[in-house]
Amino acid sequence: MKITAVRVTPIAFKDPPLLNAAGIHEPYALRSIIEIETQCGRLGLGESYGDAPVLQDLLLAAPHLVGQSVFDLNGARRAVANHLSAPAQGLLPDATLALAPSTHSEKAFAKAFGAFETALLDCQAQIVGLPLVELLGGAVRQEVDYSAYLFFKYAKHIDADYPSDPWGQAISSPEIVAQAQRMIDLYGFGSIKLKAGALEPDHEAQCLEDLAKAFPHHPLRIDPNANWSLTTAERIAQRLGRLLEYYEDPTPSLEGMAQLHKATGLPLATNMVVTTFEEFKRSIAMNAVQIVLCDHHFWGGIRATQELARMCETFGLGVSMHSNSHLGISLMAMTHMAAAIPNVAYACDTHYPWQVEDVIEQGRVPIVNGKVRLTHTPGLGVTLDREKLRELHEQFLSCGITSRNDAAQMRKYHPNHTNKKPRF
Amino acid sequence: MKITAVRVTPIAFKDPPLLNAAGIHEPYALRSIIEIETQCGRLGLGESYGDAPVLQDLLLAAPHLVGQSVFDLNGARRAVANHLSAPAQGLLPDATLALAPSTHSEKAFAKAFGAFETALLDCQAQIVGLPLVELLGGAVRQEVDYSAYLFFKYAKHIDADYPSDPWGQAISSPEIVAQAQRMIDLYGFGSIKLKAGALEPDHEAQCLEDLAKAFPHHPLRIDPNANWSLTTAERIAQRLGRLLEYYEDPTPSLEGMAQLHKATGLPLATNMVVTTFEEFKRSIAMNAVQIVLCDHHFWGGIRATQELARMCETFGLGVSMHSNSHLGISLMAMTHMAAAIPNVAYACDTHYPWQVEDVIEQGRVPIVNGKVRLTHTPGLGVTLDREKLRELHEQFLSCGITSRNDAAQMRKYHPNHTNKKPRF
Repeated sequence: MKITAVRVTPIAFKDPPLLNAAGIHEPYALRSIIEIETQCGRLGLGESYGDAPVLQDLLLAAPHLVGQSVFDLNGARRAVANHLSAPAQGLLPDATLALAPSTHSEKAFAKAFGAFETALLDCQAQIVGLPLVELLGGAVRQEVDYSAYLFFKYAKHIDADYPSDPWGQAISSPEIVAQAQRMIDLYGFGSIKLKAGALEPDHEAQCLEDLAKAFPHHPLRIDPNANWSLTTAERIAQRLGRLLEYYEDPTPSLEGMAQLHKATGLPLATNMVVTTFEEFKRSIAMNAVQIVLCDHHFWGGIRATQELARMCETFGLGVSMHSNSHLGISLMAMTHMAAAIPNVAYACDTHYPWQVEDVIEQGRVPIVNGKVRLTHTPGLGVTLDREKLRELHEQFLSCGITSRNDAAQMRKYHPNHTNKKPRF
Repeated sequence: MKITAVRVTPIAFKDPPLLNAAGIHEPYALRSIIEIETQCGRLGLGESYGDAPVLQDLLLAAPHLVGQSVFDLNGARRAVANHLSAPAQGLLPDATLALAPSTHSEKAFAKAFGAFETALLDCQAQIVGLPLVELLGGAVRQEVDYSAYLFFKYAKHIDADYPSDPWGQAISSPEIVAQAQRMIDLYGFGSIKLKAGALEPDHEAQCLEDLAKAFPHHPLRIDPNANWSLTTAERIAQRLGRLLEYYEDPTPSLEGMAQLHKATGLPLATNMVVTTFEEFKRSIAMNAVQIVLCDHHFWGGIRATQELARMCETFGLGVSMHSNSHLGISLMAMTHMAAAIPNVAYACDTHYPWQVEDVIEQGRVPIVNGKVRLTHTPGLGVTLDREKLRELHEQFLSCGITSRNDAAQMRKYHPNHTNKKPRF
């Protein structure tokens, strides 16, 4: 069960011009595809960030996994911790693997290890002959709910070398409601999340109110990505509070979120202020957030996310799930993981409907009635389409993007766009 | 990989007349041996409490595991939660399996599920063909340190139907030092724990001081099992503080421990006031304890204990390990688990040297240089000696003990012995 080869292939895939707090998505989103080959002929898959800093860590660590057992997650942790590109300050890469809290190193380690761990677990489950969910403790649900992830967007990229997406512009409230309708018609989602923090807060609030009228039975969330001041966040809370399932990262910092919760009583969710176990600890002391959006890509893998979920249960926090732009390997990892965690009690986020390409032989993972069904073949249940991988790797090499920069992209449309946060 | 049979066999084994805060050990200690058989012909082993309340839960739940996959830990959790003898008040035995905090039900559930989970994991590891430690994430150490667990004791039981143990009386300080010497000579332990709370606190403190003189390089702990008032605990802390690696459960309650730590600054360890995740949460808010003695038998299994260890790392608590009187199956489960948890940073407790019988074909598990080595065969690495199991089950049936009662036993020696706690 030894690892005989580890490949890390950076890819780029087409991504629509979606607006967010930082700016706007570039024409291509980056990702890394991890392949782990074993002595016994299995191939495990992983998918994670493709930006230069993470990619560098993945490329540096990969050779050091070769020769280890695919079951030795602690050994893989050591291999990754010992070969991060940034000096592993605060990392003690010995057997105890004590990680300095909330350092850059801790976050870099969590991202790099998380990428490999999915592929290791895929191998493990294939060796055992079980779907991944069974290796993770067994399915508490056979399908996982996802939410319709709405974005303000432009009709077309300013600089794409490919035709525009079919979604069209979504700036006005009727356009956002139409986007929701289309997404629900296509995928059957039963919950709605609006990515905000991009336009005037009162306009975004108006859109949310109009969504509530159009979809009175859909739980609603709004996520300004910490782009609202505490004053703005409080004001919008008064306007939207009763409509929201939860209020996601309206304002920056644990302190800001704690003050906002104290002032409004609204359940606050986050993938920005609780992103490490150290931040979790600080949040508990302050009652800063009530729902953690977990994400195995940056929490240090699936096992660590299961530990996070237990911690949330212990401290009375809810668990939902965050996403970045991603393809089918990530979607199936998210699905197997969410199906094994009893207290994932909200529809999970996914950008998947915004993507049209993929690297899996299965084509595109179906989302039906807002749900992704568990696969029943051993492992993650997806296999690699090498031709597509080659194409998307070519796209990575030719697209000219090596690190995501949504603010710089927005300056191509609006030269005066700044990084100021919170903007509103 | 389906479960075809689950057997729960209560056993009794000879136990020396060891003194503790409650009274004195009875001539026999009780335990349950769990066997889980799979379709594919594997037999997984577990060992846990054998007292009537736990035994009843195990017997009630066992048939409901049959037909499930040995990998479906979440399914096993539901089966156990749905079939506890006490009405599962606060247990929601549905897919979310929300457990009401710190209820009797939560503790009963954790003990019953923990017993089965070891056997399930043993099966899983056998199926995968790996030592259990590898299934748990991989060995961060090849051998696990245990401590010499000293007890005040009488030379013989008042009512045993078998010859006295070879350890003799240990009441005076020279007798305790001699006991330590004998135990270290036999097993090579590098740490010493003195079970206290049985005799006058100043006498016990004198014994600890004499141990420190006799074994100046051995880390020392004292454990009065919450039998000292806060005043006594503070007074003894002044006397012993500088000699102690940690001060274990000197005084009752989270509140008492929090006050004691505030007053003394000593690192406090516990297996009494933090025994559930709810108590963990309360302890964090109060800074009541600094080291948690984990124990998969009552924390809800090995996976839950791994989650506990991550929680301890997150909140800056140390991890050590508790033991009750136990045999080789438990010892190997403790060893595989401790070897997979990076932050077990203290020598673990074990009563094993006090037992002379066992139910495993390997005979007695060797402890050399104070350490138990990992086994390298698939699973836990121990197999059942059916003849010994039958003998110890006969002993259970004939010994007349169904629930441990160290206080009642002590009244056979001292009729005026009471349950008063704290006694000193």
